[in-house]
Amino acid sequence: MAARGVHHLGVAVADLDESIARYALLFGATVEHRAHVEDQGVEAASLHVGPSRVELLRPLTEETPVGRFLAKRGPGMHHVAFAVDDVAAELERLRGEGVQLIDEQPRLGLFGLQVAFVHPEATGGVLAEFVAA
Amino acid sequence: MAARGVHHLGVAVADLDESIARYALLFGATVEHRAHVEDQGVEAASLHVGPSRVELLRPLTEETPVGRFLAKRGPGMHHVAFAVDDVAAELERLRGEGVQLIDEQPRLGLFGLQVAFVHPEATGGVLAEFVAA
Repeated sequence: MAARGVHHLGVAVADLDESIARYALLFGATVEHRAHVEDQGVEAASLHVGPSRVELLRPLTEETPVGRFLAKRGPGMHHVAFAVDDVAAELERLRGEGVQLIDEQPRLGLFGLQVAFVHPEATGGVLAEFVAA
Repeated sequence: MAARGVHHLGVAVADLDESIARYALLFGATVEHRAHVEDQGVEAASLHVGPSRVELLRPLTEETPVGRFLAKRGPGMHHVAFAVDDVAAELERLRGEGVQLIDEQPRLGLFGLQVAFVHPEATGGVLAEFVAA
């Protein structure tokens, strides 16, 4: 089974409003969704650039995965998400291949989508997400 | 003028063959193009994942932009490229907005496409490329 394509590029930012304005100016990006996601510790904005999506992630506190990323590396590209039909089936397939996963089961991600993360060790330094979308 | 969408995600890798095999296994990626690009100091492979594109970049030497990135940060996401109709017009527009550019004029990028890079300072830590495609 193959991913159907890139669902979004996740970018860690310090200031969400300023970043939305910046992406609008630079790339003509428009806001698709925006929400606080308390259990992931982020305020997120999903932007459309044509048919593509960039997800801007502002950590709510430093003690969150995106907060720690921002403190350590500064703002920038955080993850890439691939669209798949069935996240659980994809995890099962990758487990069979011995691929290192972060999420052993799908969980509810931003905007109510089923997601799971693959470990950067498995991809060569890229934090990759599967999204059922 | 707005970008038409994400053209590709550029990823710095240490071993191109191994990375191509890894992206095939993980995401069902297939090779679109592969070439040495001496003046950029990389061996590059453009992969398709569905309609999306991931560009794997292996530096030919350490003394190249991607080589220095790899030495400093390790393998991982290097840049994101947005498709535009006219790179020169886009640079002109951004210069008018006071946006910090790396390339003041379009240059020939991988696979013969016209490209220009925007400075990460302008985007909030993301190295962004415009591609005429």
